[in-house]
This record gives sequence, structure tokens and C-alpha cells, in this order.
Amino acid sequence: MHTMHRVSVLGAAGYSGLELLKLLAAHPAVTVVAAASDSNAGKPVHALTGGPVSALSFVKTEEALATPAEVVLMAVPHDPAPALAKQARAAGAKVIDLSNAHRATDVYGLTSLFAGEIAGASLVANPGCYATCVITAVAPLVRHGLASRDVFVAAGSGVTGAGRQAVEAMSLGEMHDNVRAYKVLKHQHVPEIEMALGKLGVAPRVTLTTHLLPIARGIFATITATLTAPVATMELVELFRRDYHDDPTVTVCETPEDVSLRKVVGTNQTLVGVASKGDIVVVTAALDNLLKGAAGQAVENLNLVLGLPRTTGLTHLARHG
Amino acid sequence: MHTMHRVSVLGAAGYSGLELLKLLAAHPAVTVVAAASDSNAGKPVHALTGGPVSALSFVKTEEALATPAEVVLMAVPHDPAPALAKQARAAGAKVIDLSNAHRATDVYGLTSLFAGEIAGASLVANPGCYATCVITAVAPLVRHGLASRDVFVAAGSGVTGAGRQAVEAMSLGEMHDNVRAYKVLKHQHVPEIEMALGKLGVAPRVTLTTHLLPIARGIFATITATLTAPVATMELVELFRRDYHDDPTVTVCETPEDVSLRKVVGTNQTLVGVASKGDIVVVTAALDNLLKGAAGQAVENLNLVLGLPRTTGLTHLARHG
Amino acid sequence: MHTMHRVSVLGAAGYSGLELLKLLAAHPAVTVVAAASDSNAGKPVHALTGGPVSALSFVKTEEALATPAEVVLMAVPHDPAPALAKQARAAGAKVIDLSNAHRATDVYGLTSLFAGEIAGASLVANPGCYATCVITAVAPLVRHGLASRDVFVAAGSGVTGAGRQAVEAMSLGEMHDNVRAYKVLKHQHVPEIEMALGKLGVAPRVTLTTHLLPIARGIFATITATLTAPVATMELVELFRRDYHDDPTVTVCETPEDVSLRKVVGTNQTLVGVASKGDIVVVTAALDNLLKGAAGQAVENLNLVLGLPRTTGLTHLARHG
Amino acid sequence: MHTMHRVSVLGAAGYSGLELLKLLAAHPAVTVVAAASDSNAGKPVHALTGGPVSALSFVKTEEALATPAEVVLMAVPHDPAPALAKQARAAGAKVIDLSNAHRATDVYGLTSLFAGEIAGASLVANPGCYATCVITAVAPLVRHGLASRDVFVAAGSGVTGAGRQAVEAMSLGEMHDNVRAYKVLKHQHVPEIEMALGKLGVAPRVTLTTHLLPIARGIFATITATLTAPVATMELVELFRRDYHDDPTVTVCETPEDVSLRKVVGTNQTLVGVASKGDIVVVTAALDNLLKGAAGQAVENLNLVLGLPRTTGLTHLARHG
Repeated sequence: MHTMHRVSVLGAAGYSGLELLKLLAAHPAVTVVAAASDSNAGKPVHALTGGPVSALSFVKTEEALATPAEVVLMAVPHDPAPALAKQARAAGAKVIDLSNAHRATDVYGLTSLFAGEIAGASLVANPGCYATCVITAVAPLVRHGLASRDVFVAAGSGVTGAGRQAVEAMSLGEMHDNVRAYKVLKHQHVPEIEMALGKLGVAPRVTLTTHLLPIARGIFATITATLTAPVATMELVELFRRDYHDDPTVTVCETPEDVSLRKVVGTNQTLVGVASKGDIVVVTAALDNLLKGAAGQAVENLNLVLGLPRTTGLTHLARHG
Repeated sequence: MHTMHRVSVLGAAGYSGLELLKLLAAHPAVTVVAAASDSNAGKPVHALTGGPVSALSFVKTEEALATPAEVVLMAVPHDPAPALAKQARAAGAKVIDLSNAHRATDVYGLTSLFAGEIAGASLVANPGCYATCVITAVAPLVRHGLASRDVFVAAGSGVTGAGRQAVEAMSLGEMHDNVRAYKVLKHQHVPEIEMALGKLGVAPRVTLTTHLLPIARGIFATITATLTAPVATMELVELFRRDYHDDPTVTVCETPEDVSLRKVVGTNQTLVGVASKGDIVVVTAALDNLLKGAAGQAVENLNLVLGLPRTTGLTHLARHG
Repeated sequence: MHTMHRVSVLGAAGYSGLELLKLLAAHPAVTVVAAASDSNAGKPVHALTGGPVSALSFVKTEEALATPAEVVLMAVPHDPAPALAKQARAAGAKVIDLSNAHRATDVYGLTSLFAGEIAGASLVANPGCYATCVITAVAPLVRHGLASRDVFVAAGSGVTGAGRQAVEAMSLGEMHDNVRAYKVLKHQHVPEIEMALGKLGVAPRVTLTTHLLPIARGIFATITATLTAPVATMELVELFRRDYHDDPTVTVCETPEDVSLRKVVGTNQTLVGVASKGDIVVVTAALDNLLKGAAGQAVENLNLVLGLPRTTGLTHLARHG
Repeated sequence: MHTMHRVSVLGAAGYSGLELLKLLAAHPAVTVVAAASDSNAGKPVHALTGGPVSALSFVKTEEALATPAEVVLMAVPHDPAPALAKQARAAGAKVIDLSNAHRATDVYGLTSLFAGEIAGASLVANPGCYATCVITAVAPLVRHGLASRDVFVAAGSGVTGAGRQAVEAMSLGEMHDNVRAYKVLKHQHVPEIEMALGKLGVAPRVTLTTHLLPIARGIFATITATLTAPVATMELVELFRRDYHDDPTVTVCETPEDVSLRKVVGTNQTLVGVASKGDIVVVTAALDNLLKGAAGQAVENLNLVLGLPRTTGLTHLARHG
């Protein structure tokens, strides 16, 4: 019988942290030895998960870091992340950081593209949710030199992407049935996207407009670009399918219309659809911001650093209802 | 040509206050002379309504009270209401108070039942949203001595019923797809309901369980009671229809299943449906908490105190798309 | 006292038709003499509106066309529209057609741009909902020669934009919390948008990706383009504000983030926001697809052909709760 | 290493069937050998689940029944269920039937109450979703002889409870933001509830009003009754906690207000809260209609007939988002 790997989760009571606990509870080769949440320390985990996910109670971050673990998964904000990562590594653990603190400097954990590097890393920067969606959708165009310089992205996210909120603007009374853009021309995921795509070919200039949608979870991205020369839809679909042929987490649909949030929320999949008309190309892509866009990909990264098959513990995930 | 009546609105920037401004803008016999909101004073009304409802800017409450008006409509909280009503009346205005400050002591403005008293009143207490829904649904049973002592009500409301909120529990992330009960066995509308029904017959004991629904507006109430003796559904429907025959704001449906939020949100109607089985009776009722449950009925009360037909300015209201 | 103008509504029981009836009920200078719906003929209008919008019952289309009217508003599908318009005009009526049957050939009723032509027209083609939103957002860029050839639009609509539906894919069980693209690279509003913009300057090539959103109503559009030369955000805002200075139905916000569905649903406004970074420009725009995107603009067109102020009967509209 | 038990799923492409496949994919002691759906035969399971839940393709029901299995889980409609169950049993399999075909006649699989009988059964009738919620909430009152004869229940369900739908009344355009009652005074779960409670004490008369809520999943029930004598809230809470002390799937909250859909959707838990005032008692309860109300409890029943711990394969379930 195989040994169970010991892992800790920091920031375990946030939306992504709870998803991590839930995924790790179904993981056949991992045991969670500490779940840290400073504001919930002492409270049993099941009080927040609503199910018997774990027999643990939340502990203070310091206590979690003092508990020996092979890997520490960090679902904490950007600011405290570097110091915590340093502490975890000093204690001998590998680190998967879900914040954007290490994305510019360390191994970038986009599993579909960089599995090789990730396997040998001791600190993996788990990609942003929009970044995962957009990079997956645009990568084949960049890799094969098909897109002109400018790539235009309009993308929307459910509100869990912004974490827990206590402001009137995020109340159901105000956000129900609402749609609005945010961080126009200044979203922090743009450099991350351009950097990752730059490793595949000539980095495009990405203009990303992000929107808040009146739903809890899911990201849908629509990418428009000019092709360097006309390519038929059928050729693009085949090219995308070849690129993602072996990828267990990316599905290339028949058409951009076949991509939908409904099909991905609850799963660790990215759906992608592509079509062209003359020299214009449109790619749609969707994923669950808390799974493939956060906790799900983090478990893939965990599997890779532990030397396990990439989707271990993720194969039961399916769309909700 | 008729004279336009001068009215002021206090608490004009809340959910009910904005509905009042919108309704009064379409009212053929009324001019709004002041719209008060202390926290929005100086801001144009259209900044909050999103349409050219009014050329006014919000003013401080004191300034509104200093502006001569025939009627002052108060959409303010319970606590400040009595002093403001006193001030308005001292200045010679009649008052329609949407808070629950005067419901136990003054003319109770449930227009379907007490239009006569309202017409001669100088202060009308506009009923609560749940109270309007439940009283309308139960009144025929009480008036005709059909229900046993206990009346059990389960009712749900959209979140605008609770006003604007800036707490995590009311964020879309937490309230989306959620349902939960609140104020169980202690809702403040119960005495109001028992008092009003007591004027029609033997007051029942009302047990009301209120629920928050993951929608912006609307109230749906389901009432169950034991009949003093079996009465057939068809007889009950006829009896309800006779009672509400002349009422322009109450529609008695064929069945309890025909009542729905969708049919009433955007309107000033209460829909009611009734059915029985042996000595058990079920009544369903629905209304728009911001219209028939607040601003719409307040305009009815305004019309009555001004000697106008009860639904003046309300006949264009219809369900939302 | 002024004369009331007699108008008829065809297709009066659809989502847009019901909105027309509701708006016309609040209109001070218009009387609806016939509301046609072949499948609802004989049913009282209030059965569908949920409020006392009209004392009329629905009639067959033929009966409506036989009723003398000054203007006939047609909220019918594309296919029957030309024959019905011909019949109405033969009977001496002017026509406002909400379908896309006459948009390529007749006076294009985008009121913000073509009010002069509309005033003298006997047949006005009411613009599409997406078209109204996108044209309003892009017009200043085209008029002032600022945008390069390609304009990329990602836009989403509530499901009422597609009319009533009885298919599993549009059931709440499937569309709740869903987002998906449709008619990618083949939406019928594109020629309409390019044609209208071509009257203001060099027509751009428009790539429009439309999305279905899990809400009932509202359109949100995000437009991205390359500027012919860098223009600062502040200059663009001022330029947009000058262009729409006198327009009672367009509001230019401070920023693209200030535009939201919540602010426009229930109103006859288009909100627009613009920002730039170097030679990239992003414009966001939002409107209510059933009001400014259909029935509201149709009433503006009605007012113009009747010689009334453009927003007569529309000034009470405000955001919902 | 333990043997994997072979199980088949009939009706595997419906909402409950897909949940079963998803749960069984995470189950450590079970292998799905056939997933039947006549209308999807030949299609890979992952086309409907949106994730790599299973490497199987759907097969015809007859083919599934011909595949040797220890247990057959049936998520098929009422009408075909008896014949299919007979066929499965003739082939030597035990049966868990999620329809209501066998609930009046066979072992009733409400795991919290009848685990002993279930363990030895060869055909288990999995309870209805409303029935599970209401019986769990009312059982302690009946067992301890506390409630008077009449028990009044108002309960609401997400639309997945009604299966897939292609009618206008269930379209998002009509059901969004809607609430309506259905099957008033004639819901098929009432006899089931009265029968199960009758095994614990004097069966009450249950009046159940069910409502459709504008959400995808979850059931919330509010029960009101008269106590045979006043009992303090604190005593009731303690009594409920004693009764459910060892139950891994029922949580008794501090108050009825602590129960919410948000806490149970995604889990296999029933949350219950109770409070009293004099001789009136209110109990609230909530569960996920597709998990504890269908597939989750079916897996509990599967575990019991296989001699496994009752919550095997269910401990990773947690609230969504």
C-alpha cells in the first residue's frame, strides 16, 4: 500500500482554500495535516464546508507552518505570500502558491504548458484564473505564429473570484442581474499572460477587459484577433486539437458556441472553441475559477511535484446539477 | 386644467424612496417639490435612478420639511419617523409613513380594507410588505369566520425588502442561490397582521416564518389553516372573488398554483389563490415588496387623502419583461 | 386639452409588445386602440401584464389593422413584417417596425443620430438592441476618425432578447448560472451597425461576438479598438460628452467601470464609458434590451413622427429596485 | 487490497444519474460497469459530465442489465421502474430504486432511520427529496409524541428536482426571479412522509405545499405545528441533538435561522433547526435535492447493502464555492 503524502493548506477558509480541502479529501495519496485560518482558528473545518470533509479544526498559520509537511499549499493574499513561502521552504517543504506573488519570478504552474519544469520545482506559482483561461485559449495561435500583434480579450467572472466581500456594491441587492467591467486597461493578469505566451512564440500585446457577472463561479473569455493570414475554421480546430491532444484538462469543442460555463463549473476542465472568417479569429474559453482557475490546477501542480499522475484525485469532478 | 398637488418625499434615496420618485414622475396630478436624502444631498436624483425621473437634486431632510407641501411621504427608518411626522404635520402637511412607527396607533393604510378611514386621515401608516400580503390573503377567511384559531404562514422576500446592505452574509457570493429563514417566531409584522385581521372578525393567532430569497424583489406567502368546517375549493374561490370584486389591486386566481412572483413584480397587484381539501385550506399570495408592499400602496394612500381615484398614476404598471 | 393620438400595437403579447403597452399606458398624448396577438386573441391584456395596463382585450392582427390608427407599432417577427407594414400604410397609418425587415432599406430609427430624418418618415425601422448599444458607443470614434479599421465587440444579453422559448437549452435548469456565445461571426446586427456607422464616417469592420447571460434583461457591450493615434482618456470622455451633450437618452460616465446593467435596466438610457492606454481604446455601454433596445426607442420614434418631444411618456422610467 | 464491487446505473444521463456517476467515481470500493441511457447510448459519459468522470460510454438499458453487477442503481422514472427492478433482481443483483415506485411496498431507504432494515434488503426504495427533508425534520417530534395531529409544511425546491424540461414555463425568461407553488394539496410525497413517520409514533396529518424556486438545486422546508404541551426551544434542540447524535448526515443547528441552502448544496447533509414559542414549534431543514435528496442517499443505501460504512465515498462533499 502506498504512503500518504503530508500536505498543509494556508488560507484554508477562503473560497479557494475550502475547495482545496474538498479536493484533498478525495485525493487517494495525500493527507491534510494542517488547515490554517487565523480568523477561524479553533473552529472545526466542517463548520465552513457544511460536510465532513475533514476531522481537523482550523489552526493559526504559525501552527500550520510548525507541522511537518511535504508540500504547503498557500491560498493566501499576495502581500503575506513571500514571507510565508520562505518560512515553509526553510522548514523543508515544497510550496504551491496560489497568489500572484511569485508568478513573475518562479516556475509558472500552468500545467498544460510547463509540466516538465513544474515536476522539478520546489516553489510553483499557481496561475491566475483569467490567465489560465486566456493563455490556454491563445497558446496555439501564438505557438504557430498565427495571430497578429494585438489580442483583444473580454472576460467575465463569478464573484467568488474576488473573494469574500462585505460592501454594498457586492450585495445581492446591487449585483443581482448586474454586469459591470472592472480594472479596465489595468488588470494584474495581463503581464502574466504576456509572459507565459512569450515562452511559446512572439508575445502578443494583450488587452483584457474583465467583467463581474451576477453568478457565484465560472470564467468565460472571448478572444478576438487578426490572423497573419486567413486560416479556415476547420484547420484551426484541428490545430487546437493536435496541441491539446494529450491534455486531460483541456477540451477543444466543435465551435465557439459549444463552450459554456454550465459545462465547466464543478470540473477541472478548460473548454475552448475557435472559429475564423477571413483573417479574423474568435476563440471562446471557459473554466471554473475555483477549480481549474485555482484549487484544481493547484492539485495538478501538487501531483506533479509529488511525482504522481497529473489528475490524481481530480477525476470525479463533473458539472453541477 | 387641474391643479398639481405638491408632495415631498423623505428617505428618497432608499429602495422604496426611489420607487416613490419613479411612480410620482408618472402621476398626472402630483408634483414632487422635494426629495430628501441626508447622505445624498446635493446629488441629482437621476444619478441614482439611472433615468430622467426628476430634475431635482436630493436635499437635506430639514430643507425638505421647510418646503411647503400638501403631503409628505416618509420612506425613513422606524426610529426617526415619529419626530419627522410631527414636524411635517406642524407645518400643515398630511403624512404617509412607510415605516412601522405609526401602525399600532394611527389609521392603518391597507387600502383594500380601510379606504374610508384613510380618506379622512391626516397621518396614514402604510402597511408592511409581508403584512399587506398576508392580510389580503387571510381577510376573507377571517371575515366569514371560516378559519380556526391558528394561521400558519411561510413567506419569502427578495433582498430589497431589507434595504441596502454591506455585510458579507448579504453579498452575492453568499446569498446567490441561497434561501434562509430569519426572525423566526419574532417578526415585527405579526402584531400588525393580527391587529388588522381583528377588525374584520375574531383575530387569529398568526405564526409567520419569513425567508430571504436569492432575488431582488417580490414577496410570496403560503398560508395554511384548519377550516372550522369543510368548505369546497370552488366556494372559497367565489367567496374570495366576491370580497375583492371591486378591488383594482387584488386578483383572485383560479388556483394557488396560478399565483407567481413573475406576474406581480413590477405591478401594484396582489395575486391570491385558494384551495381546500376537507378542513384544510391553503392560500397563496404574491406582491412586489417595493410597489404594492411599499411605494405603490403609499401612492394609493396619497390618492385617497387627496380625494383622487385610488389607482391614479398606477395604471401603467406591469410585470417586468 | 390636447388630442390623443390613436396607435395600434401588433405582436403585443411578446416581451417587447408588452413593454410597448406598458409605456403607452403612461404616455400623456397617445391612446392604444388595438393590441394584436393572434395566439392570445380574446384574452384581456391584463392577463399577461399582471396589472391594469389596459382595458383592451387582444385582437387578431387583421382586426387591429382594420381599426383606424395614426401609427402602427409592429413588434412582430422579421418574416411577416413587410406585408403587415404595407397593409398598415395602405390604410393610411405610419409604421414603426421593431423587426429587422426594413433596417437596410428604410429610415433607420436610431434616435440619437437620425432624429431629423425620422420626423418626416412614414416608415421607421426601429434598430436592433445590440445595434443601438454598439452604434451609440462607437459613433464618436467614427465621426471623429479616431478608430482604425477593426472594431471588436463582445456583448451579452439577457434571455428576453431572444423572445419566449420552450427548449431545454433555455430552461432555467440549463441556463441558470450559464454563459455561452451564439451566432459567432454571423450575427445579423453587424451589417446594420456597419451601415449606420458608415453614415458618420469611414465605416469600420465590426466583429461582434454575442453572448447569452443568465439574466432576464439588459445588454452590456465591451468594444476594443486601436486608435489611429494615441488620445488621452480625458480627451475621449470630453469628446463623447460633447457629442451626446443634448441627448436625453445617453449618459457618458466618468469611466468604463461606471457603466452597469443595474443602472440601465428599467430605463430608456444608454450608458457609455470610455478609456484609453496608448493607442488602445475600450468603450463599455449598457442598455435595457426591451426599452432603449426596443420598446423605449420605438416610443421615441413614435414621438418624433407625431411631432412630440422625443422623450414624451418616458421620463418616469428608472432602474428597478 | 479490497475487491471493487461492480455496480450499474440506469437512467445515468438525468440530473440524479449524473450525480451518481460523479459520486461513484470518487468511491474507493465501487466500480461502475455500465451507465445506461437509451437516448444517449453510444455517447461518452464525459460529453455530459464535462469532466473525465468515467471512461465508459452510455449503453442501452438492456445492455446494462445484461452486464453482471452486484447492485443496480435505478434513476429512472416511476413507470418503467418495477419491470426493470424485477429484471435486475432476476439477474442476481440487488436494487436501489430512486423512483417512487417501491416506496409504499419495499424497504424504505431513509438511512437516518432505517439503516438496520436496509442492510439486509435486496431492494431499497430510495426516498423522495422532499420526503427526506421533512421526515428528518419532523421525526424527533413524532418519536417523542410532541406534535399535535396537524403538521404544516411549506417547502421549495430548485428546478433540477423536476428533471430536464423543455417548456416555456420553465425557461429562464419565465422562471428567473420567479417563485410559484405546485401540486398544492396533492403532492405525491405526502403518503410517503406519513408512512415513514407512522413507524416512529402516531402518524401526523401532513399538509405539504411545494414551491419552485429560481435556482438549480436545493430544498428548503419550513415546518410549523402545535405542540401537545409547551416545550422550551433549548429542550427541543437538545432532544433533536440526542436523536441525531450518531448520524453522520444530519446536523442540528443552534437556531432555525442557521439553516440555509448555501450550507448544504454540494453536500450530503441535512441541516435542521428548531425553535418554539409557547405551544408553537417551527422546524427548518435543508438539503441538496440531488445529493442527500437523491444520489447521495442512494450511495449511503448502496454502502449499507454492501456492508460498507454508510458514508464511504461521500466524505469529500462540501458546499459549492
